[in-house]
Amino acid sequence: MSLEALARSGGHQPRGDPFVFGRGGEEMISLAGAGVRFRIIPSVTAGLGALTTSWIPSTLRGLNQAIILVTGHAADKTVDWNALARTRQPLVVYMALRNLSSIAEALQRGGLPADTPAAIIASATLENQRVMVSTLERVAADAQREQMTAPAILVVGDIVRVREEVLSLCAGS
Amino acid sequence: MSLEALARSGGHQPRGDPFVFGRGGEEMISLAGAGVRFRIIPSVTAGLGALTTSWIPSTLRGLNQAIILVTGHAADKTVDWNALARTRQPLVVYMALRNLSSIAEALQRGGLPADTPAAIIASATLENQRVMVSTLERVAADAQREQMTAPAILVVGDIVRVREEVLSLCAGS
Repeated sequence: MSLEALARSGGHQPRGDPFVFGRGGEEMISLAGAGVRFRIIPSVTAGLGALTTSWIPSTLRGLNQAIILVTGHAADKTVDWNALARTRQPLVVYMALRNLSSIAEALQRGGLPADTPAAIIASATLENQRVMVSTLERVAADAQREQMTAPAILVVGDIVRVREEVLSLCAGS
Repeated sequence: MSLEALARSGGHQPRGDPFVFGRGGEEMISLAGAGVRFRIIPSVTAGLGALTTSWIPSTLRGLNQAIILVTGHAADKTVDWNALARTRQPLVVYMALRNLSSIAEALQRGGLPADTPAAIIASATLENQRVMVSTLERVAADAQREQMTAPAILVVGDIVRVREEVLSLCAGS
């Protein structure tokens, strides 16, 4: 059911952050053009929710000054992985599994070291969430071996190391 | 009160997304080291909440493939605005007012056109939210003239244009 039809039937549509790789912008334009009243309610986007439930901080002083949310499945245009790699800031890649191998290779060609920490978070924030920690060089093979399935987020950068540090601190206490 | 002291007193601490420029990572490490039990609850980060309540989509097909959250007030290290500008992806700058003029200049030196749309969103998501739309070249002067005050988010990129489009569609219906 389209949002327009849903609105006309009196319904509403709650879900993560519709503006982050969720076609919320296109739907907003369509609703405004159709004269349908709407309100957009901020909610947690999957990529950032995945970090909080995996003990991977989006930002940590000394490690990074930015966090980049990017689609792994650009329908309309190729992502410039080179330019993203050169920022040296961590990446949170949505819909990461299908092109995982080529994304990991492109980021290495862009200058990120092969041993850059990389994590896959599947079914983020849900009860069946699974987290797999690897490196940029090995993440595609590891994800296949561990049978990680969509929906899945890829996190690339030194912020991933914090998870291990926190887990080991918790285990030791 | 530190989070550790708060936890020991039986309290809890709700707030946006503590992991996005909120020292949540540092506090998590400190709590884990102190043996304090904690849970991190995902919530809406100010920058993305600001976009939803301003009718500026984080992503729009054809316009961008990524969205970059970055601090305008890096305590520890200079932000590489050049590298960020070269991604040609929109930027959401937290704590943007203090260094607004130098940030806008750095992004233009990095190759962003002077007429790149730039918006300031003050007191985002609150009842007294104010949105000001300008360009990279004029945003610092405009923000001063309009007396925009902290807390404020700077949004840079073509996604800002969508707000005007939606407002004009709504006005016409």
